[in-house]
Amino acid sequence: MTIPIVLESHENRSYNITIDSLSKLSFDNNVAIITNPTVAGHHLETLLSKVTAPNLQIVMVPDGEEYKTLHTVEDVLNQLFEYKFDRKSILIAFGGGVIGDMTGFTASLYQRGIDFIQIPTTLLAQVDASVGGKTGVNNKFGKNLIGAFYQPKAVYIDPAFLVTLPPREFAAGVAEMIKVAVTFDKEYFSFLQNADLHDLETLKKAIGKSVTIKANVVNQDEKEMGIRAALNYGHTFGHVIENETGYTKYLHGEAVAIGMVMANRLSVELGLLTSDEELQIKTILDKMNLPTDYYINDVDAFYEHFFLDKKSAKNKIKFILPKGIGDHVISSDISEDVVKKVLKTFGAR
Amino acid sequence: MTIPIVLESHENRSYNITIDSLSKLSFDNNVAIITNPTVAGHHLETLLSKVTAPNLQIVMVPDGEEYKTLHTVEDVLNQLFEYKFDRKSILIAFGGGVIGDMTGFTASLYQRGIDFIQIPTTLLAQVDASVGGKTGVNNKFGKNLIGAFYQPKAVYIDPAFLVTLPPREFAAGVAEMIKVAVTFDKEYFSFLQNADLHDLETLKKAIGKSVTIKANVVNQDEKEMGIRAALNYGHTFGHVIENETGYTKYLHGEAVAIGMVMANRLSVELGLLTSDEELQIKTILDKMNLPTDYYINDVDAFYEHFFLDKKSAKNKIKFILPKGIGDHVISSDISEDVVKKVLKTFGAR
Repeated sequence: MTIPIVLESHENRSYNITIDSLSKLSFDNNVAIITNPTVAGHHLETLLSKVTAPNLQIVMVPDGEEYKTLHTVEDVLNQLFEYKFDRKSILIAFGGGVIGDMTGFTASLYQRGIDFIQIPTTLLAQVDASVGGKTGVNNKFGKNLIGAFYQPKAVYIDPAFLVTLPPREFAAGVAEMIKVAVTFDKEYFSFLQNADLHDLETLKKAIGKSVTIKANVVNQDEKEMGIRAALNYGHTFGHVIENETGYTKYLHGEAVAIGMVMANRLSVELGLLTSDEELQIKTILDKMNLPTDYYINDVDAFYEHFFLDKKSAKNKIKFILPKGIGDHVISSDISEDVVKKVLKTFGAR
Repeated sequence: MTIPIVLESHENRSYNITIDSLSKLSFDNNVAIITNPTVAGHHLETLLSKVTAPNLQIVMVPDGEEYKTLHTVEDVLNQLFEYKFDRKSILIAFGGGVIGDMTGFTASLYQRGIDFIQIPTTLLAQVDASVGGKTGVNNKFGKNLIGAFYQPKAVYIDPAFLVTLPPREFAAGVAEMIKVAVTFDKEYFSFLQNADLHDLETLKKAIGKSVTIKANVVNQDEKEMGIRAALNYGHTFGHVIENETGYTKYLHGEAVAIGMVMANRLSVELGLLTSDEELQIKTILDKMNLPTDYYINDVDAFYEHFFLDKKSAKNKIKFILPKGIGDHVISSDISEDVVKKVLKTFGAR
């Protein structure tokens, strides 16, 4: 399956996402595979059997979100200069979201921009980070606060790489599938309710559906001026949860799962979602072994944390609220009282 | 005078360059003026009398090319996070090319991109860095090797800021004017031969002409796939000179002046330029008190340095060669022997 990503009035920045067994990739230019020891241990041999280039380098970065920093990117840049990479050289991001975000960001910076290709090896990266061109790194103020919008030249999604993925990471990817289903596509939500995602063909179909929905949104609104914000469903809360727990307790998709539960409760409070719909979403999250509960120790502190999020322009918090299943509302006008009332229900146990 | 910069198929990235006395600037959002103590000492009071914003911050960076690094940019980013700047906040680059390049780069990175405005205070920045959207920093491998293509929202050029500019820096700006005249516009070259650039109206006219020529080139070729490379006339050699002299002996425009003399001699060698034309160009450079000579100690080492330049894709060096005065040739096929023969004439004194 090949899904074309056509960015508005940017013909030369369009690219294809291919969901299939990885085919041979031949290059005429310098190529560096950016990966980490974990992914390399499982899959580098497979990748190397597919890729040919006159000068092929492997650049290892440490495994983990805590290394998604400007310093790691600087290290990678320095290695590319050591290898005398030029403007026609190509980077391949081979790993999960951290590798993808850092490789894309590095490619955007190297000599003001060289090409990169994504070969995501986690479900989360396959359905989420592979589409949209958001690249960047974290800093002490929060996640993804430094970065660039920069599109890959191509994305190759091969679900076979997922066989070595730990179950928690697989579930974290499913969380992002549920996210787009709830906000955009009721039929896809029903499909997921009944799907056995460990069946390869079913999984391919589900990945394709998620990628298509996200691509459609990004094509309309690359820079997140409008509809793209809907992809942050679960993230407004999720980012605070990740921040409060030091980015170690929960995987990103797990924090988003809890964030969706919080957003849902706010939707119910506002009459946008029925309790039955709220339960349906919680049920599928539970079924996928995603966390759906969180103890908020200090509601005021939790609320304050929203304002560190880069999406909170001018001290307004943008909430993405499901409107039934398959639709959503984006609102920056939810009163502090209502939000705190909902947050308190997560502390009162 | 207002010169519109309209970037191809990027309507929302078009902007105006205004050449006039600085008018009042009022903002509804957070604004940070990025400047250095030297510029601030001379002109900050003037700027502050013109700018109003609900939250106006001054961010000082150290003065000098040696501080044009990723670390300085990281420091500025951190300050903006401390000030809780959001996606609608605006940066003002107030200074020379270093300030402009770093401010634009910082703006491109902050939360994946916020707006910035350029108010260049050196002649070089007014005629060169103000147009084109090249932003970035240096590293140990060379100049501007890390960066982004990122356009300002507006550029305000006020020649009154130049009164405090040291004569050497003024001349360095004139070098870039001569550069575009030689490669693109014979009439402008004649104008410069007879111009008194210390007359404000003449200077405005000359700045306007330079900016228009460069804007026309950049509008055709933002990412330097073709014609934009012609703006590197004098730079291929100049970058090596800057690198060999540790970026301290020559100002950028001075190194470019010597670089133009070198490129001219190569042009004469190849029959593209007459000795008389070569002399005319040297004469105007001398008249403007720009350096036109350089002692190459080791021709082989000088030649090797070309390949560190980021423009040297696939080990080919791209030379910009004047073809008479007012036209040019871009060639990547000049033999090593011919280049070294010309380089040797700079060592044999």
